[in-house]
Amino acid sequence: MSEPKRVTAAVLIIGDEILSGRTADVNLNAIAKFVAAHGVELAEARVVGDVKSDIVAALQVLAARWDYVFTTGGIGPTHDDITADCVAEALGVALNEDPEIIAEMTVRYGEPPNAARRRMARIPEGGSKIKNPMSGPPGFQIGKVFVLAGVPKIMQGMLEDIGWRLQGGAKMLSRTLRVEGAGEGSIAALLEGVALAHAALSLGSYPFFGPDGYGANLVVRGYEPAEIEAAIAELITVLTPGAGARLSRPSE
Amino acid sequence: MSEPKRVTAAVLIIGDEILSGRTADVNLNAIAKFVAAHGVELAEARVVGDVKSDIVAALQVLAARWDYVFTTGGIGPTHDDITADCVAEALGVALNEDPEIIAEMTVRYGEPPNAARRRMARIPEGGSKIKNPMSGPPGFQIGKVFVLAGVPKIMQGMLEDIGWRLQGGAKMLSRTLRVEGAGEGSIAALLEGVALAHAALSLGSYPFFGPDGYGANLVVRGYEPAEIEAAIAELITVLTPGAGARLSRPSE
Repeated sequence: MSEPKRVTAAVLIIGDEILSGRTADVNLNAIAKFVAAHGVELAEARVVGDVKSDIVAALQVLAARWDYVFTTGGIGPTHDDITADCVAEALGVALNEDPEIIAEMTVRYGEPPNAARRRMARIPEGGSKIKNPMSGPPGFQIGKVFVLAGVPKIMQGMLEDIGWRLQGGAKMLSRTLRVEGAGEGSIAALLEGVALAHAALSLGSYPFFGPDGYGANLVVRGYEPAEIEAAIAELITVLTPGAGARLSRPSE
Repeated sequence: MSEPKRVTAAVLIIGDEILSGRTADVNLNAIAKFVAAHGVELAEARVVGDVKSDIVAALQVLAARWDYVFTTGGIGPTHDDITADCVAEALGVALNEDPEIIAEMTVRYGEPPNAARRRMARIPEGGSKIKNPMSGPPGFQIGKVFVLAGVPKIMQGMLEDIGWRLQGGAKMLSRTLRVEGAGEGSIAALLEGVALAHAALSLGSYPFFGPDGYGANLVVRGYEPAEIEAAIAELITVLTPGAGARLSRPSE
């Protein structure tokens, strides 16, 4: 069995409004699910404010370490939208006005765009546009970096023009076994035994507490379906004798 | 007028389940609002998986740069809960079992805790416990680092034992002016004029699009209420002549 090919990504969320608490980010989760479906493993995420040096530094670190980088936010027409400038600076390329975007804007507005809107027509040299099916001005890809809007609906629209660009690796699969009526503390040693026997898998335990009871969701993740099923079967075997715990049928 | 004292924080979210997309984080937003109310500015956030070297490296970078660091996740009894070990390693201190926590556990379970639960009784040398009003085992503070649970309700309960420990600085204030019926592109130049005239403030523009219309929320943030009000008044003055846009009463 050859090593599964691991392809990774990072997300860089840009915007003071996330850090101030004014806005709750929802883009991270959407991108995490999207890349996972394409065989790309989200390996790290960062949130930085609208500060040029912070954005540039984060872009450089993330692009050096991971296969893809997705940014969200900061690509509108206002003075606080500086993501395109930062990406160009981080990658050491020029930022050029794209005549096609200017032409599209001229049609859309019925007149040539003003200086602020022209800012949204800038693409780093060597980049390609990412379609924006909702509000017009595109995002862009340059090399491994995908630059997307911050408004969730626009960001999600842009994802539709990204799947075909990704070269995914082995797809990470997961199965969840729900254990009710047993605290994590009483099953931890049993879980660790199974985890140690399957070093190629990751076994996570996520407790829940609620009015209807308590327990843990055991999530087995890996690249080999047969090994995942074997680990789930072992979990069922070791957990069943522990009276009191109820196991649900494993789910995705 | 003296410089406002700026006190900063970072959040480090720990857990494969956030990066895989299985769980949508809600702790970042809760901590952002919490620290802001205490005069502490959230300056950066990171999400890393359950990988010891990544957690240790992120802790060291964040603790070197910001005044406080809040971690969430990885403090349960199972083998994938490694946050306490990582904090001790990052800060170069020992991780010791706290006899008080062991005694409390013995009362709670009616018997001495097993090896897995004893893991939750470990506190880095020099640390202090953070009360967990919901499920028992505490979080802890060591120096500038606050180590909290990942389950949102437990995390929020722990925040109640943190406010008194924070030495906040100047409180960042904010006012929002909602502009309806005008796109960001048509008001960007006016906004930039006001932003340039108030270098001590931050002026953010957050567009919205919906079935009921479109526009932008203009958020003015800073430490001096009078200057914020002056900037809001200027925004109203410059935006009102731009026919079509409707301004709402400024709100918090």
